[in-house]
Amino acid sequence: MEGGPTDSAPLVNRRVVLAARADGRPVTLENFRIEDCPVPELAEGELLVRNRFLSIDPYMRGRMDGARSYAKPVEIGEVMVGGTVGIVVASRNERFAIGDLVQGRLGWQRYAVSDGNGLSRLPELPGVPLSAYLGVLGMPGVTAWYGLNRILEPAAGQTLVVSAASGAVGSVVGQLAKAAGCRVVGIAGGAEKCAIATELYGFDVCIDYKRGHVAADLIAAAPQGIDMLFENVGGALMDAAFAHMNPFGRVAVCGLISGYDGGGTPLNQVRSILVNRLRVQGFIISDHPDVWPEALRDLSARVTAGTLKWRETIAEGIDAAPQALIDLLAGRNVGKQLVRLDPAH
Amino acid sequence: MEGGPTDSAPLVNRRVVLAARADGRPVTLENFRIEDCPVPELAEGELLVRNRFLSIDPYMRGRMDGARSYAKPVEIGEVMVGGTVGIVVASRNERFAIGDLVQGRLGWQRYAVSDGNGLSRLPELPGVPLSAYLGVLGMPGVTAWYGLNRILEPAAGQTLVVSAASGAVGSVVGQLAKAAGCRVVGIAGGAEKCAIATELYGFDVCIDYKRGHVAADLIAAAPQGIDMLFENVGGALMDAAFAHMNPFGRVAVCGLISGYDGGGTPLNQVRSILVNRLRVQGFIISDHPDVWPEALRDLSARVTAGTLKWRETIAEGIDAAPQALIDLLAGRNVGKQLVRLDPAH
Repeated sequence: MEGGPTDSAPLVNRRVVLAARADGRPVTLENFRIEDCPVPELAEGELLVRNRFLSIDPYMRGRMDGARSYAKPVEIGEVMVGGTVGIVVASRNERFAIGDLVQGRLGWQRYAVSDGNGLSRLPELPGVPLSAYLGVLGMPGVTAWYGLNRILEPAAGQTLVVSAASGAVGSVVGQLAKAAGCRVVGIAGGAEKCAIATELYGFDVCIDYKRGHVAADLIAAAPQGIDMLFENVGGALMDAAFAHMNPFGRVAVCGLISGYDGGGTPLNQVRSILVNRLRVQGFIISDHPDVWPEALRDLSARVTAGTLKWRETIAEGIDAAPQALIDLLAGRNVGKQLVRLDPAH
Repeated sequence: MEGGPTDSAPLVNRRVVLAARADGRPVTLENFRIEDCPVPELAEGELLVRNRFLSIDPYMRGRMDGARSYAKPVEIGEVMVGGTVGIVVASRNERFAIGDLVQGRLGWQRYAVSDGNGLSRLPELPGVPLSAYLGVLGMPGVTAWYGLNRILEPAAGQTLVVSAASGAVGSVVGQLAKAAGCRVVGIAGGAEKCAIATELYGFDVCIDYKRGHVAADLIAAAPQGIDMLFENVGGALMDAAFAHMNPFGRVAVCGLISGYDGGGTPLNQVRSILVNRLRVQGFIISDHPDVWPEALRDLSARVTAGTLKWRETIAEGIDAAPQALIDLLAGRNVGKQLVRLDPAH
């Protein structure tokens, strides 16, 4: 069906657009529409990327609502936002050549025209697959690095708790904290995810919240109390951790996935903020582009040394992207959720 | 009745001890017992202070519960804790002489024996009454100074909201923030307190939460959103402010008086921490003894220049102390709540 980039026949781009807002309701396939449309001609300064992998992330849920948030919503009919890695297949931009591997935010589509802004050429590290630049060496990895090093400030011998422990962010948080000499307690949903957290990622303990007694499990898993909390979930899990925080504890609020469908995430243990003099800091990694070089140097060194591990769940083909987000929000993925857009890779 | 310090007849000390814990219930007079007992002989290194004023503060409520908190509870039968100013009436300690004016934490009693630890001699600033060292130039003033300058980091043109606005802490927060060029919005209970906040302390606006529409009032009073929140109350007031915070807002959690009687202080607007990348910091001024000299230099200069104002509510006599705390917790005081222990002053 598709022509190569040098053919005269126009290329066809398949993409996923937002068809209807989710505003406070669970996401379904009806929120999306799959479209085919021609790839436009390149203007001077533009380049064409064939995307190989699309990253599926919890923040996407927020962009599907119309409510005020830290980023503007995706409009109805617009291509869904998302991080991508791909290959340059045509270029009228002097900074990029055909064959360059690039990372960007080109959205849920096979092809994308770009003026080069926000696009970066990827290094080719031995033994590191392209998909890693959407996970451990991409936004999730840098998010983990920033939250741990710049907010939680880990100290050897202290105890860290991280929710969504086997996920793309949580797994990096825990491994970096272990390397810093911390006791690491994860919280995840189900025995399989917990086994990955302890066996693959080396967490000291992982609590399966689906067993229904997180508060008691936390007390047992963190006998010295909790010094650092990396919060990805909110709600009851956050409350259980707040109730067991130590004086001068730090909390990095990275995500509140439990409240994305409008259920809200009330915090009952507000008193712990005062009694324990907690520092609670919300953050979004896109506010901190300055930390990427330092973070990636550190993360790349650990990946090539084999001391920083990761897992991926890969959905096949652009048509599978909506279900991949639904599965992610339901916690059905293991590790980094990706969509393979280009079947050759 | 009482003899002077040089008389041979033993002095009688009247004091208030904790008779029963309040654990989760409103405080009543039955929680206290008033006792008379002889003042003991001084050992070498000790001194005797006749307390003139006792400070009544919200934190005292927390010490009446048995629950784990940032300070150990007052035990049943122990003298209630509290800040005091008084005069040295006998001394076997070379650092203190008879007639010295001293500030300390000597508790709810007329006389106290001290070994000098935690006691400081007061300067005699022209026009500054002794009672000010328990308010604007004491723990409440330094609390306000620390929370504002070290946590909220005021910037000219930004908007600050402070609850318990006409209180000993809130009034100083607002005046210092005005001096730093901020827009200052207070929240207080009742028209009288609101009038004091705007007319005496110069707040831009003060919202009477008893009128029942704090959320709408905050939106009107802070049309540019809230950059800084100095939280003394918690509960619904905290939620209303969190819902209207600006990106990169700061929150100093100084008190949660709305939850002290066990009602709890759930926070529904947790999502604002993430969406607005808030920094929320709980603090207790006793963790920061290092800031007192700098804070007091600044506060004293403003007091003697007449640019930092305060109000006091004074209860007469040690027997009135329990009711003074009950009134404070019910918000019936205006400004700094004190008890005059020595009728001569």
